[in-house]
Amino acid sequence: MTYNIMSATCPSRVVLHRIGARWTVFIVNALEHGPLRFTALATRIQGITPKVLAETLRSLDEDGLLSRTVFDDNPPNVEYELTELASALLVPLRAVREWAEAHVPEVLAARAALNPEHRQPATAPTGGR
Amino acid sequence: MTYNIMSATCPSRVVLHRIGARWTVFIVNALEHGPLRFTALATRIQGITPKVLAETLRSLDEDGLLSRTVFDDNPPNVEYELTELASALLVPLRAVREWAEAHVPEVLAARAALNPEHRQPATAPTGGR
Repeated sequence: MTYNIMSATCPSRVVLHRIGARWTVFIVNALEHGPLRFTALATRIQGITPKVLAETLRSLDEDGLLSRTVFDDNPPNVEYELTELASALLVPLRAVREWAEAHVPEVLAARAALNPEHRQPATAPTGGR
Repeated sequence: MTYNIMSATCPSRVVLHRIGARWTVFIVNALEHGPLRFTALATRIQGITPKVLAETLRSLDEDGLLSRTVFDDNPPNVEYELTELASALLVPLRAVREWAEAHVPEVLAARAALNPEHRQPATAPTGGR
């Protein structure tokens, strides 16, 4: 069977929307060098709430992208690792991350060229008065 | 300056969240072979509403990812094309699309192995009886 995200009823679209969930790209990239425990993930991905982190981890686990190892510590702790399936996804998601980090100036410049009321020409004078 | 998406206040995070908007990956992939008009995009990306398509195109345009060419037709029509900035993003977003299309069976199988009440072992018997 051939899957095509452009088709409204194709199951690949559901898969794509899950990958596109707001925090997936952060978690997959955070685990690129090996397994991490919940607390380490929460520290590394600044600004994510424990609730959202737990929900996104559960979703990724349910999709077969993460494996969980439960440690019988007190309090109990869980370590998360990318599965082989997720390793193939890491490559493009790392590239997406790198694109975002590399092209901040261009995107900000494009935004700055806009006026809230209407567009300003991109060639607005930058020197003199 | 070095940007890092893991930092809560880094502007790269804003950029990343815009790339991650629900329909961005569809539009960038739909334009991979060259410019398309609004109506062609709406046809190709099944299930997107004209309103959401227009909003996402405007956002991508404001980020410097699309260029617009207005045709003086009746009714007027606009053609959209990826900018050079977006061409670098197309590579990973095409890979994300391909991953989603290639790994539907694995993701669906992982989901199917779940029970709404509690997890079933992934090694549940498939033959016999």
